[in-house]
Amino acid sequence: MKLTKKRLAHIVFESDDWASKTFDIVLLFMIFGSIFVAILDSVGSLRARFGEVFLILEWVFTILFTIEYFLRVWLSRKPSGYIFSFFGVVDLLAILPSYLSFFVLNSQLFTVVRALRLLRVIRILKLGRYVAEAEYLTKSLKSSSHKILIFIGFVVTIVLIMGTFMFIIEGPQHGFTSIPIGMYWAIVTLTTVGFGDIYPVTPLGQLVSSLIMLLGYAIIAVPTGIVSSEMAAQKRKDEKLLENNRCPKCRFSPIHAADNYCKNCGEKLF
Amino acid sequence: MKLTKKRLAHIVFESDDWASKTFDIVLLFMIFGSIFVAILDSVGSLRARFGEVFLILEWVFTILFTIEYFLRVWLSRKPSGYIFSFFGVVDLLAILPSYLSFFVLNSQLFTVVRALRLLRVIRILKLGRYVAEAEYLTKSLKSSSHKILIFIGFVVTIVLIMGTFMFIIEGPQHGFTSIPIGMYWAIVTLTTVGFGDIYPVTPLGQLVSSLIMLLGYAIIAVPTGIVSSEMAAQKRKDEKLLENNRCPKCRFSPIHAADNYCKNCGEKLF
Amino acid sequence: MKLTKKRLAHIVFESDDWASKTFDIVLLFMIFGSIFVAILDSVGSLRARFGEVFLILEWVFTILFTIEYFLRVWLSRKPSGYIFSFFGVVDLLAILPSYLSFFVLNSQLFTVVRALRLLRVIRILKLGRYVAEAEYLTKSLKSSSHKILIFIGFVVTIVLIMGTFMFIIEGPQHGFTSIPIGMYWAIVTLTTVGFGDIYPVTPLGQLVSSLIMLLGYAIIAVPTGIVSSEMAAQKRKDEKLLENNRCPKCRFSPIHAADNYCKNCGEKLF
Amino acid sequence: MKLTKKRLAHIVFESDDWASKTFDIVLLFMIFGSIFVAILDSVGSLRARFGEVFLILEWVFTILFTIEYFLRVWLSRKPSGYIFSFFGVVDLLAILPSYLSFFVLNSQLFTVVRALRLLRVIRILKLGRYVAEAEYLTKSLKSSSHKILIFIGFVVTIVLIMGTFMFIIEGPQHGFTSIPIGMYWAIVTLTTVGFGDIYPVTPLGQLVSSLIMLLGYAIIAVPTGIVSSEMAAQKRKDEKLLENNRCPKCRFSPIHAADNYCKNCGEKLF
Repeated sequence: MKLTKKRLAHIVFESDDWASKTFDIVLLFMIFGSIFVAILDSVGSLRARFGEVFLILEWVFTILFTIEYFLRVWLSRKPSGYIFSFFGVVDLLAILPSYLSFFVLNSQLFTVVRALRLLRVIRILKLGRYVAEAEYLTKSLKSSSHKILIFIGFVVTIVLIMGTFMFIIEGPQHGFTSIPIGMYWAIVTLTTVGFGDIYPVTPLGQLVSSLIMLLGYAIIAVPTGIVSSEMAAQKRKDEKLLENNRCPKCRFSPIHAADNYCKNCGEKLF
Repeated sequence: MKLTKKRLAHIVFESDDWASKTFDIVLLFMIFGSIFVAILDSVGSLRARFGEVFLILEWVFTILFTIEYFLRVWLSRKPSGYIFSFFGVVDLLAILPSYLSFFVLNSQLFTVVRALRLLRVIRILKLGRYVAEAEYLTKSLKSSSHKILIFIGFVVTIVLIMGTFMFIIEGPQHGFTSIPIGMYWAIVTLTTVGFGDIYPVTPLGQLVSSLIMLLGYAIIAVPTGIVSSEMAAQKRKDEKLLENNRCPKCRFSPIHAADNYCKNCGEKLF
Repeated sequence: MKLTKKRLAHIVFESDDWASKTFDIVLLFMIFGSIFVAILDSVGSLRARFGEVFLILEWVFTILFTIEYFLRVWLSRKPSGYIFSFFGVVDLLAILPSYLSFFVLNSQLFTVVRALRLLRVIRILKLGRYVAEAEYLTKSLKSSSHKILIFIGFVVTIVLIMGTFMFIIEGPQHGFTSIPIGMYWAIVTLTTVGFGDIYPVTPLGQLVSSLIMLLGYAIIAVPTGIVSSEMAAQKRKDEKLLENNRCPKCRFSPIHAADNYCKNCGEKLF
Repeated sequence: MKLTKKRLAHIVFESDDWASKTFDIVLLFMIFGSIFVAILDSVGSLRARFGEVFLILEWVFTILFTIEYFLRVWLSRKPSGYIFSFFGVVDLLAILPSYLSFFVLNSQLFTVVRALRLLRVIRILKLGRYVAEAEYLTKSLKSSSHKILIFIGFVVTIVLIMGTFMFIIEGPQHGFTSIPIGMYWAIVTLTTVGFGDIYPVTPLGQLVSSLIMLLGYAIIAVPTGIVSSEMAAQKRKDEKLLENNRCPKCRFSPIHAADNYCKNCGEKLF
C-alpha cells in the first residue's frame, strides 16, 4: 500500500486498522512520556542529575508533536476548521510552551496541558461503553447545571458575608488581614478543607466558625441531592428508552447505546 | 414620554421595557461596584495607595443608594409596607453602615450586606428557569426541614458530650481549655474540617477522636440521604404534575412552570 | 383538686393538662440551665469570678433532680422497672457525678450527660410530626445497618493495613511512632479531617497518603448511597401505606401517622 | 468418631458441626490475637517492657498458622488450586513476613495482612444476610465502575494540571518544591483533607486554591450520585426479583436470598 496523502490522513485521523491504531498508541505513549518527563524535571534532585537528558527528551517530544501538528493541518480537508477546533487549540497549546521557554522563564512547565490531549486518544481504547457512560454523566450534570449555579451563587454570597464578618471579628492580628483573606478562609472552612494556616482565636470568631462549619457540613447535601436525583431520573429515562430501542433486524433484544452488534442475531448496529 | 411619578415608579419597580431594564442593570453594576470597593479597601497595601479614591467611591455609592431608597419609599403605594418588607430592610442595611462609620469604627465594612441586594436584581436576568429551579430546591429543603432539625439536634448533643469528654481527657495543657473550646474542637472534627489548631495528644484522646471522626464521616450520609430522597420525591411529583399541566389553548404539549409561551401554538402563558 | 399520689404521678409522667405541662417545661429549663452552668464553670476566667455562684447553682440543680428521681421511683407502679429502664439510668447518671465529686476530681463535669434527659422532655413539644420523622430516620438507618456494618468493617481493615504501612514507611522520626498512631493518622486522613498534627514527609509516604485520601474521598459515596437508597425505598413504602390508610369514620382522606385528627371530619384518631 | 483425613478436611474446610465451628472460632481469636500483638509490639514503651513476650507470642501464632497452612495444602483435593487461590495467597502472606524477619528488618510488621484472613472466617458467623448485603454492595459498585473510572481519570487530570499551576505560582520557597509535591498538595486539597503542611501564601495561589476547594466540594456529588442511583436501581431490581421468587413447596411467601427456611411452611431452601 503506497503512502498517499489520503492514506496518511486515514492513519492520522482514523483508528480502525493496524497502521492507524499503531499511530494512536505511539501517540498515547508519547503524551504520557512527555508529561512524565515534565514531572520528573521539576524535582530538584533529579534535575541536577538528569537535567540534560530531560531537556533533550523534552525537545524530542516537542519536535515530534510539532511535526504531528503541521501534519494534521496539512491533512485536514479544511485546515482552518482544525486549527480553531477544541483539539486544534489543545494541540497547539501542547507545543507552544516549549518554544516560549526561550523568552519566558519556566513556561515549558505548561506542557502539562498535554494531559488534555489524552482525551483525543481515548477513542483508540474502543471504549464505546465509556463514552456512553461519560455522556450519561455529562447529561446528568448539564440538566442539573441550573440548580448547581444557584447553589454556587448561594455559597459565594455566604463566603463574602462570612469572610467579612471574620475579618471584622478576628482582625489582622489573628491572620485575617483583609476581606479577600477572610473569604479565602471562609472557603477553606466551608468546604471542610481546613488547612489550619489561619484559624479563629477569639471566642466570638470560634462561634461564627462553628456555624460556618456546620453549614458547610450540611449544605454538601444539596449538590449531592441534586446530582443524585438527576442521575436517578436519567437512569429511569434510559431504562424506558432501552425498552423501545430494539434491534432493527430481529426485533428480539433491547439494545444498549454502547452495543456494536445485536446480541441475538449479530446484526451490525449504527 | 414625560417623567411622571407613575412612569418613575414603573422604571424603579418593573423590568419590562428599555428604561426600567437599564435602571436595573445600572443598579446591578453599582451593587457589584460597591462590594468590590469594600473588598479592595480592606487590603492594607491598596488602602495605603488608593484609600482616598475608595472613600470617595464608597460615598458616591452610598449617596446614590440613599437617593434610590427614598425614591422607593416615595414611589411605593404604601411606603410603610415597603420599609418593613424584607427588601426594604435590606436596602436600609445597605446604606446605614456608611453613615454609622462617623460614630462606629469599621462599621462601613458591613456594607457587604449589599450582596443581599443582588437577590432583587435577579429578576432582570429574566431567569424564569432559575426561579423555578430555586423554588424546587427551596421546596425540597422545606419538606425535609423537620428531619434536618432532628439531625442538627442529634449533632449538637454529640458535640456537647464529646466536647466535654475531650476537655476532661486532654485538659487545658493540650489546648482544651474549657468545655466551649472542647465543643468548638468537636465541631471542627465532626464536620471533617480539622484545622489542627487543637488536636488530641493523649492515646485515650486520640481514640475518642477517632470515633468522632468515623462518626462524622458516616453521619454525613444522613442529611445527604434526606435531601436526595426528598428531591427524588419532588421530581417524581413534578413529572406527574407536568403531565396534567397542558397548554390551555391547544391542549397539545405539556408545559413547564418556567415556559412563557406554549411550544406548540405560541399561546402566551400566565 | 387534691394532690393525691395518683394526681402527682399524673403530673410527673403525663403531659396533657396545665399542671403536668408546667412540670415538663420547668424540667426542660432546669436541664438547659444545669448544662449551661457546667459549660460556663469550665471557662477559667468565669470560674475565677463566679465559681461560688456556679457551685451553688450546680447543687441546687442536683438536689432538685435528686428529689425528682426519688419521686419517680416512688410514683412508679413498678419502681424496679423504672430504675433499670433507659430513662431511669439516664436520670441516675444525671445526678451521680455531682455526688461523686466529693471523691473523684472533676467528676461533676460528667453532668453534661443531662443532655440525654432532653429526649424525655421532647414529648411536651407535642411534636408528633417530629417523632414520626425521627422514626422514619431510625427505620431507614436500621434497615441499612447490615450494609453499614460491612462498610465499617471494610474501613477498619483499611485503617489497620494503611496505618501499619505508614508506620513502616515514615517511621517514628516523622511522628508515626507506633501502629496505633499510624491508625489514628489513617482515620484522620481517610475521613478527610486532616488535622495536620502528623503528616507524611517521605515521597513514598506522600504517594500512599494520596491513595488513602482519594479512597476516603470516593468511598464516602458508599454510606451515602446506602442511606439514600434506603430512605427512597422507605419513602415509597410510606406513600403506598398512606394510600391504604384512611380515616375509619368518613373514609375520605388519607391520614398521616403524625395526624391526631382527620382533616375531613375531625374524627379523633388513635 | 475417628480423625480420618476426610474428617479433618471437614473440620478445616466446612463450618456446620461442633468440631468445625470450634476450629473456625479458635482461628478467629488467633487472627485477632496475632494482629493485636503486632499492634502492641509497635508501641515503644510496651515493647521495652513486654518485648520478649510479644516475640514469643508472635512465633507461637506464626508456627500455628504455618501448621494450618500446610494442613490446608495437604487436605485440599487439588493442592495447587488452593495455593494459587486468593485465600491461599493471603494465608501464605500471613506467615511469610515472620520468617523474612530473619533477613529483612521490620518485615514482621507486615503480619497485619492477617486482617485479610478475617474474610475467611466470616462464614462462621452464619451471616447469610451479611453475605447477601455485601453482594448487593459489590454488584452496585461493579455496575458503576465504568462511571467511577471516568471520574477518577477526570480527578487525576485536574490534580496534574492544578499541581503544576501551584508549583509555578507558589514555587519552592512556599513549600511547593516540585510538581509531584504540587500534585500531593492538590490531592490533599481536592479531597478536602487539608493537612496544612503545605498551603498557598501568594494571593494568586490562594485564589487558585479556592477554586480547587470549591471544585472538590462540588464534585464529591458525582461519585455519590453514581453510587446512589446505582443502588436505587439495584434495589428496584431486587424488589422485582423477590416478587417472582417464591417458596418451591407452598408457593406462599416471597423468599429472600438470605433466608434459609420458608417463613410459611418451613421448607429448607437451597
